[in-house]
Amino acid sequence: MAEAPLFKRLALIGIGLIGSSVARVALQRGDIAGEIVANARTQASLDRVMELGIAHRVELDPAEAVKGADCVMLCAPVGAYAALAEAIAPHLAPGAIVTDVGSTKQSVIRDVGPLIPEGVHFVPGHPMAGTEFSGPDAGFATLFDGRWCLLTPPAGTDPEAVERIAELWRRCGSMIEVMEPAHHDRVVAIVSHLPHLIAFTICGTADDLADESRQQVLKFAAAGFRDFTRIAASDPVMWRDVFLNNREALLEMLARFTEDAQAMARAVRWGDAGYIEDKIVRSRGIRKSLIELKQA
Amino acid sequence: MAEAPLFKRLALIGIGLIGSSVARVALQRGDIAGEIVANARTQASLDRVMELGIAHRVELDPAEAVKGADCVMLCAPVGAYAALAEAIAPHLAPGAIVTDVGSTKQSVIRDVGPLIPEGVHFVPGHPMAGTEFSGPDAGFATLFDGRWCLLTPPAGTDPEAVERIAELWRRCGSMIEVMEPAHHDRVVAIVSHLPHLIAFTICGTADDLADESRQQVLKFAAAGFRDFTRIAASDPVMWRDVFLNNREALLEMLARFTEDAQAMARAVRWGDAGYIEDKIVRSRGIRKSLIELKQA
Repeated sequence: MAEAPLFKRLALIGIGLIGSSVARVALQRGDIAGEIVANARTQASLDRVMELGIAHRVELDPAEAVKGADCVMLCAPVGAYAALAEAIAPHLAPGAIVTDVGSTKQSVIRDVGPLIPEGVHFVPGHPMAGTEFSGPDAGFATLFDGRWCLLTPPAGTDPEAVERIAELWRRCGSMIEVMEPAHHDRVVAIVSHLPHLIAFTICGTADDLADESRQQVLKFAAAGFRDFTRIAASDPVMWRDVFLNNREALLEMLARFTEDAQAMARAVRWGDAGYIEDKIVRSRGIRKSLIELKQA
Repeated sequence: MAEAPLFKRLALIGIGLIGSSVARVALQRGDIAGEIVANARTQASLDRVMELGIAHRVELDPAEAVKGADCVMLCAPVGAYAALAEAIAPHLAPGAIVTDVGSTKQSVIRDVGPLIPEGVHFVPGHPMAGTEFSGPDAGFATLFDGRWCLLTPPAGTDPEAVERIAELWRRCGSMIEVMEPAHHDRVVAIVSHLPHLIAFTICGTADDLADESRQQVLKFAAAGFRDFTRIAASDPVMWRDVFLNNREALLEMLARFTEDAQAMARAVRWGDAGYIEDKIVRSRGIRKSLIELKQA
């Protein structure tokens, strides 16, 4: 690697699926960070990180982890951000960039923004990539390849800091889009958060059936239910935090969806074949648009 | 093939994804039927069937198609069954078995049962296999491999006729379960029909967003939404008929699901972190059970 790395020291605060994938691609490429420091909530996770050989150094104390880092990336569940920001704020190096990978962006700006010291940059980000697995073993270097990374810098953020975070994600293989935080939260509410809420819910609905039916549901889980349960296997703490931190947009999208589902139920009840068929034809159209946009 | 085939002549009434897959596996194996006759609503479909070489003979008139057949399999959308049964009933050969592949079973017994002549057997069936594609080109010989086929013979059906249809599906690669029709309809309402209703609905909800958001939804469709739209690409007429013919069970499962989704919404609104986390942990458990049952 002839080029100097983008950052001298990258501190990853949290080293689960996303953090450990960033660590892996950064180690593999060499041009993202000269040194990778990993922080986690438990020593067991950090021991595993060293076994996996995906960081140069591990620190159980987030304040120690960020010292001397020119890039600090929060990779913990978004509900932990406020406490983490409080812990690291006094130890951030002047000129450092704080970024994150959380799925909600208004909450991150609300919780972390006010704690960022003068002279430190703050560039919230959201790599739209993931699997239903979690923990440092679940990551892999190609996770971000060809996937979008959305950046939502608050007004007045140094454009050079934004560009450096954009370049970090480009080197991870991502495509970049800069977006207004409130708009981000609405878009992800429907493309990601609501589908997860539905998946978690329908699993519970099935589980509540009388015992015989429940066994049959598991036995005969057809397409449909199987697809739903794949995303339902996702990390509980991460998703709990996402729901609580994108409350308004998620509740609005769920309300819209529920109205639409009730309209479909009414058409089923009263035998309105034309309405049902129209809705199905229309949803096929959305699928077609997705394929044309090469997202499916 | 030393063995005589299970049936001398198999008439497939409808030759879409399921019918054409049965035709393909029957032709490939040779021990399911000596002759395969295909019927479809349009001459264009039948021309395509002959081009594909997946039937020995095609007939545009269902009455002609069933003449001399010792097995007649209805493979059309379930809403077309009543008219088809009326058309074929006077032409069914004595001792023939009429079966079907519809996703709803009480409606099939209601619509077809009374029209079956004395001396003809009726064994309703439901192969739990499919893709989001439709038409004679979409079928393939391995579609039923390792998948369940549910049989719901009405009380008093000749056990030998049930066994012959079970053997047909075993030769297609399926595992067999005999089930009470009402119980079948409840189980598939939650494992298949409700997930499809949800998928069709959420696509519409997304499509109704203001134009800018809608473009973003398509652009940033993450996991979750993408999985939902895959099943939303399924055949509109088939699914319209399924919804209308499993009305009671589908509306009951949707009502249960909606209550559960509202409870989750309430927990999100009031910040009940414990409730949300419990639900997600529980849905992970369902996923784990599925994996243990090798259905995922």
